[in-house]
Amino acid sequence: MTVSRTVELEGHIIDSGTMGHCFGVVMDMGGEFEVEEFEVGRHKHAETYCRMRVLAETESDLRAILHELNQQGATVADPRDATLEAAPEDGVVPVDFYSTTNHPTFVRVDGEWVEVEDVEMDCALVVENAGDERPRVYTKVLNAIEEGDLVVTGETGIRVEPPERPRNGSGSFGFMQGGVSSERPSASLIEEIADEMREVRENDGNVLVVCGPAIVHSGGRDALAELVRAGYIDALSAGNGFAVHDLERDLYGTSLGVDTESLEHPRKGHKHHIYTISEIARLGGIEEAVDEGVVDDGVMYECVRNDVPYVLAGSIRDDGPLPDTITDSIEAQNAIREQAQEADIVLMLATLLHSVAVGNCLPSTTKTVCVDINPATVTQLLDRGSAQAIGMVTDIGTFIPMLAEELLE
Amino acid sequence: MTVSRTVELEGHIIDSGTMGHCFGVVMDMGGEFEVEEFEVGRHKHAETYCRMRVLAETESDLRAILHELNQQGATVADPRDATLEAAPEDGVVPVDFYSTTNHPTFVRVDGEWVEVEDVEMDCALVVENAGDERPRVYTKVLNAIEEGDLVVTGETGIRVEPPERPRNGSGSFGFMQGGVSSERPSASLIEEIADEMREVRENDGNVLVVCGPAIVHSGGRDALAELVRAGYIDALSAGNGFAVHDLERDLYGTSLGVDTESLEHPRKGHKHHIYTISEIARLGGIEEAVDEGVVDDGVMYECVRNDVPYVLAGSIRDDGPLPDTITDSIEAQNAIREQAQEADIVLMLATLLHSVAVGNCLPSTTKTVCVDINPATVTQLLDRGSAQAIGMVTDIGTFIPMLAEELLE
Amino acid sequence: MTVSRTVELEGHIIDSGTMGHCFGVVMDMGGEFEVEEFEVGRHKHAETYCRMRVLAETESDLRAILHELNQQGATVADPRDATLEAAPEDGVVPVDFYSTTNHPTFVRVDGEWVEVEDVEMDCALVVENAGDERPRVYTKVLNAIEEGDLVVTGETGIRVEPPERPRNGSGSFGFMQGGVSSERPSASLIEEIADEMREVRENDGNVLVVCGPAIVHSGGRDALAELVRAGYIDALSAGNGFAVHDLERDLYGTSLGVDTESLEHPRKGHKHHIYTISEIARLGGIEEAVDEGVVDDGVMYECVRNDVPYVLAGSIRDDGPLPDTITDSIEAQNAIREQAQEADIVLMLATLLHSVAVGNCLPSTTKTVCVDINPATVTQLLDRGSAQAIGMVTDIGTFIPMLAEELLE
Amino acid sequence: MTVSRTVELEGHIIDSGTMGHCFGVVMDMGGEFEVEEFEVGRHKHAETYCRMRVLAETESDLRAILHELNQQGATVADPRDATLEAAPEDGVVPVDFYSTTNHPTFVRVDGEWVEVEDVEMDCALVVENAGDERPRVYTKVLNAIEEGDLVVTGETGIRVEPPERPRNGSGSFGFMQGGVSSERPSASLIEEIADEMREVRENDGNVLVVCGPAIVHSGGRDALAELVRAGYIDALSAGNGFAVHDLERDLYGTSLGVDTESLEHPRKGHKHHIYTISEIARLGGIEEAVDEGVVDDGVMYECVRNDVPYVLAGSIRDDGPLPDTITDSIEAQNAIREQAQEADIVLMLATLLHSVAVGNCLPSTTKTVCVDINPATVTQLLDRGSAQAIGMVTDIGTFIPMLAEELLE
Repeated sequence: MTVSRTVELEGHIIDSGTMGHCFGVVMDMGGEFEVEEFEVGRHKHAETYCRMRVLAETESDLRAILHELNQQGATVADPRDATLEAAPEDGVVPVDFYSTTNHPTFVRVDGEWVEVEDVEMDCALVVENAGDERPRVYTKVLNAIEEGDLVVTGETGIRVEPPERPRNGSGSFGFMQGGVSSERPSASLIEEIADEMREVRENDGNVLVVCGPAIVHSGGRDALAELVRAGYIDALSAGNGFAVHDLERDLYGTSLGVDTESLEHPRKGHKHHIYTISEIARLGGIEEAVDEGVVDDGVMYECVRNDVPYVLAGSIRDDGPLPDTITDSIEAQNAIREQAQEADIVLMLATLLHSVAVGNCLPSTTKTVCVDINPATVTQLLDRGSAQAIGMVTDIGTFIPMLAEELLE
Repeated sequence: MTVSRTVELEGHIIDSGTMGHCFGVVMDMGGEFEVEEFEVGRHKHAETYCRMRVLAETESDLRAILHELNQQGATVADPRDATLEAAPEDGVVPVDFYSTTNHPTFVRVDGEWVEVEDVEMDCALVVENAGDERPRVYTKVLNAIEEGDLVVTGETGIRVEPPERPRNGSGSFGFMQGGVSSERPSASLIEEIADEMREVRENDGNVLVVCGPAIVHSGGRDALAELVRAGYIDALSAGNGFAVHDLERDLYGTSLGVDTESLEHPRKGHKHHIYTISEIARLGGIEEAVDEGVVDDGVMYECVRNDVPYVLAGSIRDDGPLPDTITDSIEAQNAIREQAQEADIVLMLATLLHSVAVGNCLPSTTKTVCVDINPATVTQLLDRGSAQAIGMVTDIGTFIPMLAEELLE
Repeated sequence: MTVSRTVELEGHIIDSGTMGHCFGVVMDMGGEFEVEEFEVGRHKHAETYCRMRVLAETESDLRAILHELNQQGATVADPRDATLEAAPEDGVVPVDFYSTTNHPTFVRVDGEWVEVEDVEMDCALVVENAGDERPRVYTKVLNAIEEGDLVVTGETGIRVEPPERPRNGSGSFGFMQGGVSSERPSASLIEEIADEMREVRENDGNVLVVCGPAIVHSGGRDALAELVRAGYIDALSAGNGFAVHDLERDLYGTSLGVDTESLEHPRKGHKHHIYTISEIARLGGIEEAVDEGVVDDGVMYECVRNDVPYVLAGSIRDDGPLPDTITDSIEAQNAIREQAQEADIVLMLATLLHSVAVGNCLPSTTKTVCVDINPATVTQLLDRGSAQAIGMVTDIGTFIPMLAEELLE
Repeated sequence: MTVSRTVELEGHIIDSGTMGHCFGVVMDMGGEFEVEEFEVGRHKHAETYCRMRVLAETESDLRAILHELNQQGATVADPRDATLEAAPEDGVVPVDFYSTTNHPTFVRVDGEWVEVEDVEMDCALVVENAGDERPRVYTKVLNAIEEGDLVVTGETGIRVEPPERPRNGSGSFGFMQGGVSSERPSASLIEEIADEMREVRENDGNVLVVCGPAIVHSGGRDALAELVRAGYIDALSAGNGFAVHDLERDLYGTSLGVDTESLEHPRKGHKHHIYTISEIARLGGIEEAVDEGVVDDGVMYECVRNDVPYVLAGSIRDDGPLPDTITDSIEAQNAIREQAQEADIVLMLATLLHSVAVGNCLPSTTKTVCVDINPATVTQLLDRGSAQAIGMVTDIGTFIPMLAEELLE
């Protein structure tokens, strides 16, 4: 071991697993560590401090190890400024650009630690006003990079703060370690979610709901419309399909051709889907259809009436699509990104595709609730590193009415 | 029946199911049929010919029926040309446009049947060169429609040729059929099941419930106990595990160690399962535990109190087992067989193993309801050839309370 | 055809599918039929009557056919009594014992049809009081057979009444049918698929492959690249993700950051995905990257080198995307539509989203093969009404190498 | 905090997460901790030592906390002997009996730490020869307890050693944290498993294979038979179904009635299953059928011929069963327990029920490999706390041939 550097960690680093994880990182990457100082937090509220020297065979090995420790919240004892390099052309980042995590992140610019704005995974970091009094650092997705943007490269001068294990019970918004079960009692979980939503509302916060078409098929539509009307939903994100199903229900009383009350399949019912699209297209869009009184019920109707903004993103599976649907995926991502960054809590309801798209744009500190009948979907969504997530494997058609009852009673 | 029209079918229409399907269509849509001529294909390679008069109450009913027969390959005896209408603007089809299937399709233009090009589902049909020598008909997706396109509307002059059952072995490229979907409306299904159960009760029939442990974990236990107490359940079939979970809930307030109210995991909670077994073993069995007042709540308690006979079948996975559990599989099968033969309706709730065991002993005439959160389980259970089966893919912890509410309100 | 026998069927045998099924049975088992009399039920409530002569090559073939017809409810025109044989010892049935279905069954004893008690599948039939005034027939499971029990053997004198399609709406208690199973032998299926692909190639047909990222993760990439190189693939349809994974594998030797050879997770491996996109973006696209020698291996490489056209469709989940990806969903659909319409056979490999998009554009006459490890995906894809479809539930990483071996050996 | 006690931990307790977990236990249970001494392991190979005082409100809270710490490997600084109590009657344990984990466990008897024999989860600990020179402690399942057995109660005098994070790469036999993926490269994993099996064989170790019927359906049977013949399998555990399928394949060339070569469904094929059982029953059992030459191929055949002992456990789903099948679940568990305790590596192949039964009897130190096409099955099996487990989500019909090729080439 020929090269070394000293790093420090501080906080509840033992019971959050951070300390052990850092030791593991060094060993797994072929390095060694020498603990120089270790002040264990001797009580529940006392923090632990560790200073250790990290050794490696080569400078590049060492850099790699330091980078990983950094991602765990370790700081190099003697910090330097982040390296910046200008983007060579639009949509192209410098070769060694730093790609972000979804945790709160700080970049050292001119000797100061600047907090990154709009934290989001897999982005580049762009620095504005470097050398100025008030430098800013924010994330940019690769396709949004403009020639000349000052992009953070390498691994120095970057500090990440992964979420800590909460000292006090965090209820069900757990520190997620993948454990989703379909065998957890639903009623009490729903109560907790309702409490959280009420709190967000009282604080003028923002509730984003991500909706899949199963909401309409399985009978959760009316309850969701009620929640929109009652002001519990501040933004809605969905695909073309969800909106068409919701509107079909209003225009024909069916969902994918099935009468959701009588369970009958009216003849030509399977054509209602495509007829709905054609009808709305004729009128020019959802808002126009509401204004003309053609649409007078349902989730989209309530969104229009109550000024709840919605984003409908297109997909190659879509029929139609509706005039309201954003067919370009980059444009749609940008609209979703804006929703995600503003949200305080996100309900992901019975849609994998759209939930992943929204989840990709969320900082790890935003609370998320994932409900799906498929355990694999819930697991995949919770796996994305949110620090405060609830997963429920249940029928969306019973979940939303129970949530509405809890909130509206 | 005031209006009628004659249609013809030809081909291997009996063994392809087409003939039967057409009869079904007419009956399901409220029409009648009179077979005027029927030449059965008397040999393997001989085709069958059927001419029948279709009757309906109204012209619009008749048109709907004819449309469906058409989709099955029936041709109206006296065909007319397809109706054409110009698209009013780009991306907008005429109101009554014909929306395609993915089967080979023919459109009658100027007295000739023209084959549709580029067959694809959910498209409009556009006619080019009508009136010309070589008219063409092809599909267009809605968003590709241009102002002035001649679009086929209504249902006359359209013929569809659904694939026939191949005369020679088609190998593995099979003729596929539908399955079970988790997207069916739940509330109305639950009503139907409740109606059925009420009817069985009124006729002094027998309701057998087959129970998996998830009933307890997911909060369906109290509702099931109520149903037993109210006399809606006549027999219960389960495994050792279900009974232990139900009893653990009573003795410790937990299910597999989780407090089902507070969601907390009391320490040593994971040992409650084995303690429960040990406790019941000490007393000599469930009935003894009820008699001594140790068990005073839950499904097993209500069974004992209300003389609802239960069969607990053992398995090699069991802890314990309880003294009540029948450990020999042949003996257990015999007990299950007796329950199955007496049942008029069987509810299979969140257990594959026991449902299969019960299902093995059921005549195909017994009604069955299968509820599980795993679609594969529901499919497997419905696959066993019961003639009267309902499958629901949903959370058992919301299904039973909803069923109980429906029955007990 | 040297032997024959006459059978009769009666009831709603056309719309129940019984008639078609019986024709199918005779043909599938190598027999012939001659319809001697056929009285179609001319109205909804009129029953159909069919008398037909069944012919076969050998007596034993005929017996086998009759047995199957019997199971469908057909009765031999000139019935004989059932054959009875005494059980040789406890738990042992006579060699040729009749094994029951779960449908209502009747056994001919002393010239009378006796209804079987306690109908249950896979049991033996035991006759009591034969020769007596009141003979009884009931089911017995094999292990309950006692020495001397009179057991029904062979197939004569047995009549089964499978459930008929209810005349009146049966509500949700449906008539169930089978699905897709993961328990089908794979090797022989793969052979069949290979045969089909060879035939398509010989006829200058068109093979379209729809690819999901799991192909790369699970080790099917090299085999797919070989198939492209060998000319077995004429077009490729995928998402941005598939291409990025394929290229990451080439540039970094990893797939989503995991070294697919050594199974190790190189540090920063999870960033390789985004680095790959940035690298290709810098060069201007995949073709450019191949031309400059940066990409020299893999599926996309072989597509470029062998002029196999590809469509990469964008999605709101995408990172990047690559310059080659079509981000507008309508444009992407149009490109996919063109591929779909030209295809003679479509392989849908481990992707639900793209397979649905392609499937939406396919006529029902195009052959499709769907392979996915998730049974629900396979079922959903097969459900779309293709007349000629194979579904396989298996690991894509073993399917493609086996297919390649079959085709390239 | 009125009561307290001092505990010690030693080892690689930081990077194994033990230390953090212990802090968490104390806090979650309402206690406090005061670290009295903390010697961090300053290098990779240096162990960490921690002595801390644990405080609680009540004596019973304290006891509960100490118990949990114990389960993590903490030892009370000033140990006392375990408490023993005689079992009051057969099958009944003392009220406060200690219920085991599956980790290596030590019990303090007469001042000495005695290692527990036959470690297994959810058992009682019985002490023999207490007061003697050579006391023994072993596990007993509840139903095996005999009146007068000296059973360990309470929580004092018990020490558990949960597995530590291996210092050197453990390859794929990972320290499992639930992460099973169907997207991992199979070939290299199979190589590793083969290496492990070779090593076990060279050390005269014991390979136990747990088999599900899918092995036969999906074409893995011949390869498994070869492995038995080549001496790679030392014991086989399965259900009645597996054996019947294997034998049906030999007697009729079908598996559940499907010809596994030609994919055809011979008529009456669905009856082969029950005929096979009847045939083997007639002969008296599998060994007899092999001896008489009726069975001359397959997995069961090779087991008989090569003296590989097998356990066939019964279930309430079974047809038959075969004379060899153990129908009593307690007896079957005892037979499985013996197999499990002797095994050095266990392959769990496409069976959840039997794998759980075997897994229940395994110490956490036995290596396990779980292969199933259903990710949920693999997750559930890996979740049981084995320290060295590999999970693969793949088709068993391709896994076994690949493993056999690797081992036999």
